[in-house]
Amino acid sequence: MRSYTFFERFSRAFHDYPSLSKLIVVSTVSGGGLIAYSDANASTDDAHAVKPPEAGLKKKKVVVLGTGWAGTSFLRNLNHPSYDVQVISPRNYFAFTPLLPSVTCGTVEARSIVEPVRNIVRKKNVDVCFWEAECFKIDEENKKVYCRSNQNSNLNGKKEFAVDYDYLVIAMGARSNTFNTPGVEENCHFLKEVEDAQRIRRTVIDSFEKASLPNLTDEERKRMLHFVIVGGGPTGVEFAAELHDYVNEDLVNLYPAVKDSVKITLLEAADHILNMFDKRITTFAEDKFQRDGIDVKLGSMVVKVSDKDISTKVRGNGETSSIPYGMVVWSTGIGPHSIIKDFMKQVGQTNRRALATDEWLRVEGCDSIYALGDCATVNQRKVMEDIAAIFSKADKDNSGTLTVKEFEEVIKDICERYPQVELYLKNKKMSGIVDLLKEAKMDVAKESIELNIEEFKSALSEVDSQMKNLPATAQVAAQQGTYLAKCFNRMEECEKNPEGPLRFRGSGRHRFQPFRYRHLGQFAPLGGEQTAAQLPGDWISIGHSSQWLWYSIYASKQVSWRTRALVVSDWMRRFIFGRDSSRI
Amino acid sequence: MRSYTFFERFSRAFHDYPSLSKLIVVSTVSGGGLIAYSDANASTDDAHAVKPPEAGLKKKKVVVLGTGWAGTSFLRNLNHPSYDVQVISPRNYFAFTPLLPSVTCGTVEARSIVEPVRNIVRKKNVDVCFWEAECFKIDEENKKVYCRSNQNSNLNGKKEFAVDYDYLVIAMGARSNTFNTPGVEENCHFLKEVEDAQRIRRTVIDSFEKASLPNLTDEERKRMLHFVIVGGGPTGVEFAAELHDYVNEDLVNLYPAVKDSVKITLLEAADHILNMFDKRITTFAEDKFQRDGIDVKLGSMVVKVSDKDISTKVRGNGETSSIPYGMVVWSTGIGPHSIIKDFMKQVGQTNRRALATDEWLRVEGCDSIYALGDCATVNQRKVMEDIAAIFSKADKDNSGTLTVKEFEEVIKDICERYPQVELYLKNKKMSGIVDLLKEAKMDVAKESIELNIEEFKSALSEVDSQMKNLPATAQVAAQQGTYLAKCFNRMEECEKNPEGPLRFRGSGRHRFQPFRYRHLGQFAPLGGEQTAAQLPGDWISIGHSSQWLWYSIYASKQVSWRTRALVVSDWMRRFIFGRDSSRI
Repeated sequence: MRSYTFFERFSRAFHDYPSLSKLIVVSTVSGGGLIAYSDANASTDDAHAVKPPEAGLKKKKVVVLGTGWAGTSFLRNLNHPSYDVQVISPRNYFAFTPLLPSVTCGTVEARSIVEPVRNIVRKKNVDVCFWEAECFKIDEENKKVYCRSNQNSNLNGKKEFAVDYDYLVIAMGARSNTFNTPGVEENCHFLKEVEDAQRIRRTVIDSFEKASLPNLTDEERKRMLHFVIVGGGPTGVEFAAELHDYVNEDLVNLYPAVKDSVKITLLEAADHILNMFDKRITTFAEDKFQRDGIDVKLGSMVVKVSDKDISTKVRGNGETSSIPYGMVVWSTGIGPHSIIKDFMKQVGQTNRRALATDEWLRVEGCDSIYALGDCATVNQRKVMEDIAAIFSKADKDNSGTLTVKEFEEVIKDICERYPQVELYLKNKKMSGIVDLLKEAKMDVAKESIELNIEEFKSALSEVDSQMKNLPATAQVAAQQGTYLAKCFNRMEECEKNPEGPLRFRGSGRHRFQPFRYRHLGQFAPLGGEQTAAQLPGDWISIGHSSQWLWYSIYASKQVSWRTRALVVSDWMRRFIFGRDSSRI
Repeated sequence: MRSYTFFERFSRAFHDYPSLSKLIVVSTVSGGGLIAYSDANASTDDAHAVKPPEAGLKKKKVVVLGTGWAGTSFLRNLNHPSYDVQVISPRNYFAFTPLLPSVTCGTVEARSIVEPVRNIVRKKNVDVCFWEAECFKIDEENKKVYCRSNQNSNLNGKKEFAVDYDYLVIAMGARSNTFNTPGVEENCHFLKEVEDAQRIRRTVIDSFEKASLPNLTDEERKRMLHFVIVGGGPTGVEFAAELHDYVNEDLVNLYPAVKDSVKITLLEAADHILNMFDKRITTFAEDKFQRDGIDVKLGSMVVKVSDKDISTKVRGNGETSSIPYGMVVWSTGIGPHSIIKDFMKQVGQTNRRALATDEWLRVEGCDSIYALGDCATVNQRKVMEDIAAIFSKADKDNSGTLTVKEFEEVIKDICERYPQVELYLKNKKMSGIVDLLKEAKMDVAKESIELNIEEFKSALSEVDSQMKNLPATAQVAAQQGTYLAKCFNRMEECEKNPEGPLRFRGSGRHRFQPFRYRHLGQFAPLGGEQTAAQLPGDWISIGHSSQWLWYSIYASKQVSWRTRALVVSDWMRRFIFGRDSSRI
């Protein structure tokens, strides 16, 4: 029988009508001058004909492993009530991983980039259960996964349980790859999880506190304040930049006695840092780091890490050297989790860096198992593998030759099924498929081109060279999750009316369009309120304006209004008060 | 050669002129409707004649152990440049401990209540060094303290160092007291440090995740969600209230399947909870907890804690029982750290609960060592111990009797030196000392009262009964720190012109006024936006209005504008979005 205060009623209103809070935060965000960003994929509210399942119809059990970008965007977009979803993950939250480098230095707080999974799935009309546990075995034959709670106390030995599935969605992400370099596992920090970022933050402060202690030699002090980053990819570069800003904007004021001993080194095995970016960005970043005093060592491979030294080999001349360090952050690449490795063996996929799926994200050889995100790789089918089937399918009159008219009838399906064809035409600046055929059959008027199978092969022989693996980014994972959820939402419908391309090696059509990645651009924050942006259409932007674009996009991409408000207020707090250096 | 953006210049302005930020936050705070609170002790800016030390004069080395309330308020108020200060603490930050119960449930974030010590002491004109280390030995004879870094890696064995001092200020706080109850150390949570609060938060979420796992019996689920709090003091009660709110306002929505299994039990060995408060508050709190479904077990002593059960004994009838639990928070009282115990043995103070000091906060028997806060207790001198000295000092003409006139000349000094005299008069509703003397010598006109030593003794015989130990609160510690800093600031001045009361057992005057605690009131938050407040003059207030008083006082008492802004925005965030339950 308690009476409600104004604020209780106020907050209750927000709980009951969450959209109310948007009003407030929108005004906050726009008040902050952030640019609105239209999200090409944010169609979470798509009202895809959500009908209640027929009475008596048993719901299909969907098990989702993992709550990262792929798993969460799948869950957010799944809205057909005919599924009974169980989510299993060792973390009960989703983390906005692109802000992890900011968390390492307290530019953004860890709590501001996480959102409980239960909160994300709560308002849905789909039944979703969440278990905080780790999956340790996938039994494909019996359609079961085996899980184990990662809490080690007070469970009366009931840590393990099994869950049945009709569909399994594997979205467990990947782990950092040490390339079996000795000493890395024991002595280096990684930057994959929120806990990693928090640990790095504490270690940076610890290093400064240690170096400030009395009775140390200059040499020891310098060693303790030598921060080494291995890997010049976007994460490593962003962390180096964040650390440099943290040291120079905040820590030098609090630790004036040791500020001259600080050194940041970035080791990169290749010839340039940020080598997935445009050359202009790479050059700008390298120059900026040089001005900032960040020592970028290119062509430098790490061969061993001991508890105090890191040994490197110069790629050109094989010279090795050993540098004393205080902290190493290892950010070189990713590899599969051991359970994924086991599962790959089980399904006969050996010698791969990730689970291979078809273009519909189904694990090769497993009809009801899907894999998305960093743990998977889409195995794009080659045109040349199917060339005979394509030819015979296109050759409707079985004449043994293909006319332009016949070809034009299947070209849409070919381009859908084999996106490399379209890419090839675009890169060769060809206006259409006819140009391609023309190449094989010179000196003939367009209408009268006729190709036999050998000529057809030679026309398409170069096409597969355009195939590229998708990068292991949040963007790919999120798009895959959204794609798969939409397929699941329309499963019944598309079983009846398939909408995919022609099955060249079978009859009828595929149920769905295959997954297509749409690259929206990529950022590389370089510190000092400068960011490099490479947007679609090779649009390059470097500097303060891109930093503001970065702020607005990262704010708009947040998974909830709570995290959005927190991240924006963290940025403001940092501008006003700087970053905190309490060791908690 | 970087150009500054608007925001860089903006934030630079704040760094250089911190008072600017006050403007912004003041408007934030007042915008939130918080009542301004005039701080009776916030005279940090006192411009106590800060002169530069004479050239060639060696600075006095002051070593401060601890950065809690006492140590920090000493450092904030010390402003005489003749000291060379070294601060040693295992934590490089100050924590606003009264908000720790809020941190356990995420009402306030841990980061919002901490401020780096280096930041607190940075703008001072006193030389201050900080070492993040633990003091493990005090060598009083050689005026040295021995310290050890609490970082275990990468220090080349140079973890230990010694520091010389001229003055030592011990402000290390206390640890939780288990009263040697078996199993407490191993199985219970404490609530003394920021890390404790963070651990409790994670454990609460873990309990809910564990209880949500499949294949558990109802009994197991109930055990996991049984939260036991031992100790019905302000901390225990506030934690119970916070936990109840967290569960009922936030967690029930995310864990609907297990919400009926949650139980909160509060065990108190005495007859009532909050027994240092007024009876009305105690009754209100007990009633409110009953309505809320918090099981308050009074007269219940814990005798043993195993990994799954907690055993209690009813104080009246000795009946024992054992209750299964999921989490126990132990909040019963405090005891000295082992280094304080060692030091107490060293200086001959055995069988005490804390370091005894005189009324000037000097450790008894140690001229240059001071102790403040929870690790110390002021050993107020009894009037009866000094009665002969007082008499002979007052009896200026050595007549063997004391006239009222003679007495009135020393009465000010007596009241200053022995505050219990004044308290006794007040409690007996006597208007002045003459009333007291009159009691001993009835039927005599005021002017002609004359007392011999025996009559004098009997007049003052009851006075010492008014003596009370100071409570171990943040308020006492902060006031002691401020007091001692002011003494240090005026050391030179007061050496020349002592301003304290007469030395009854010596000649001349004491240098300083003795420390006097001024009680400003106490709060007990009871959950559901209700707080009980007991303010000076026995002013009692319970309910929503006191909650707002609590908000405004706790906001105004923050140690920096950064923490103030963060705490206020945390409260707002909680109102709008609720508390987060991500397990990080």
